[in-house]
Amino acid sequence: MSTCLQISMDSYRSHIDCYLLAQLEELGEQSPRLRDAMRYSLLLGGKRIRPLLVYLVGELVEAPMARLDPVAASIEAIHAYSLVHDDLPAMDNDSLRRGQATCHIAFDEATAILAGDALQTLAFTLLSSASGFNPKAQLSMLKELSIAAGYQGMCAGQAIDIDATGQTQTLAELEAMHRLKTGALIQAAVKLGAIASGIDHPDEQNALARYAQAIGLAFQVRDDVLDIIADTQTLGKPQGSDVQHRKNTYPSLLGLEQAQHKCHTLRLEALHALDALPYNTDKLALLADYIVKRDK
Amino acid sequence: MSTCLQISMDSYRSHIDCYLLAQLEELGEQSPRLRDAMRYSLLLGGKRIRPLLVYLVGELVEAPMARLDPVAASIEAIHAYSLVHDDLPAMDNDSLRRGQATCHIAFDEATAILAGDALQTLAFTLLSSASGFNPKAQLSMLKELSIAAGYQGMCAGQAIDIDATGQTQTLAELEAMHRLKTGALIQAAVKLGAIASGIDHPDEQNALARYAQAIGLAFQVRDDVLDIIADTQTLGKPQGSDVQHRKNTYPSLLGLEQAQHKCHTLRLEALHALDALPYNTDKLALLADYIVKRDK
Repeated sequence: MSTCLQISMDSYRSHIDCYLLAQLEELGEQSPRLRDAMRYSLLLGGKRIRPLLVYLVGELVEAPMARLDPVAASIEAIHAYSLVHDDLPAMDNDSLRRGQATCHIAFDEATAILAGDALQTLAFTLLSSASGFNPKAQLSMLKELSIAAGYQGMCAGQAIDIDATGQTQTLAELEAMHRLKTGALIQAAVKLGAIASGIDHPDEQNALARYAQAIGLAFQVRDDVLDIIADTQTLGKPQGSDVQHRKNTYPSLLGLEQAQHKCHTLRLEALHALDALPYNTDKLALLADYIVKRDK
Repeated sequence: MSTCLQISMDSYRSHIDCYLLAQLEELGEQSPRLRDAMRYSLLLGGKRIRPLLVYLVGELVEAPMARLDPVAASIEAIHAYSLVHDDLPAMDNDSLRRGQATCHIAFDEATAILAGDALQTLAFTLLSSASGFNPKAQLSMLKELSIAAGYQGMCAGQAIDIDATGQTQTLAELEAMHRLKTGALIQAAVKLGAIASGIDHPDEQNALARYAQAIGLAFQVRDDVLDIIADTQTLGKPQGSDVQHRKNTYPSLLGLEQAQHKCHTLRLEALHALDALPYNTDKLALLADYIVKRDK
């Protein structure tokens, strides 16, 4: 990975972790065990791609970082909740995530359900409590985030994933599923980053949306590829778990080589979309590179 | 129950059910099974106390009903999601709710988890998408609802309930738990109803808050009493389930008679709070009567 992007990733990751931790510490003592489970799930590590997208979009127009913090944090809280619930025994039944015990293993199933629930709510508290925004822009971010996270986005993607496990999907069905399951929230990160930064020209918003759509799908294709070519220790989760769970994946439908080719096509689409922006988009381009080349 | 309140309850119940159904039908075909589970859970019946509170507070100042609909619907969606998740095997493991199979029995556990998740998100979509509000007031409703539903409210109450099951709580601990578990959302219904209706005088907001706090707790004490004195068919859920689940209840700590007395004291507190309001509060008073006298 480019040193420039690596420094940004590390720096923003530390920053958002501190910010999230501070938010959790302000929550009070109502139920320390629940708060511990929320903290565990939220700070388990991870690449923090969604917060990074918010910050990098903000960098395009030098938006103040403090404006972006609650936006980045709210999206990461939604992402973290979805992982906690996806890992539950009734869902994917995973005991390892980012190299550590999943929430229901480290705590218990009831606490994991509640921690996921409360992390989702926290996302909307953070975003609705943020100060300094134009109230209409803030409402628009709340609406976009909730649509991306709910029935018309991430939740439907997960439901389709469960229904399709063990069934054969067409490539179009697989793609539609991933656009909901992971794409919607990645797109929301870019969209909310733009709204929070005051990027309001429709052409620029469209270019960013095309970029987000391409990297969102590329992220998933690369995930599927890594499930085959990486090892468990690097991945931080069991290698081959897609095959074991009888999941449809890009390599299972296209073959490994074509799936890798798809990644690179999507990277080019992402870079092409960035060309339409009148800003320095180097870091967003490097992030697209990273997404299709990462090894975990 | 008074005929006047009964007519309002029936009328608003039909109205909110229609409104909720219309919202669900607009969601689209992403995952029909998930949408069915959301509809099943949201329209399973129930008293619709929280929407009723929103509408009755609106009646105080003759607020237009259309303004109140998304507010009432969002609070009911939060309530419905909490029931779906509370009933899960890892939580209270209940198979009967409102006389019908709970969501994870009627569908499956994974779908119930996702339906609950998506209903929570839907609440925030409905409230952030509503038009015609002052944006700052709308943000304030979103913030209040999320705080009442999350770690500082309902989720913590549920976590404490799980931790305390089988342990003996003091009366103060039991009361603190219920103020979070059921009280917070009932208070939010009254508070959001006031904000949506433009009731912004602090004295009036405080009087409504005291009313809400009293009926919220009374509602729970009456629930505990009914678990002992009612029968399964009337309740729509198994009679004696608190004892079976080894839950702390007001009758278990105070005795049945003192618990019933507590209900009536709380009713008087609620009525006293209403005295401070310069409006016709007859229906809110009748609702307080209903809450402490209801048989299901």
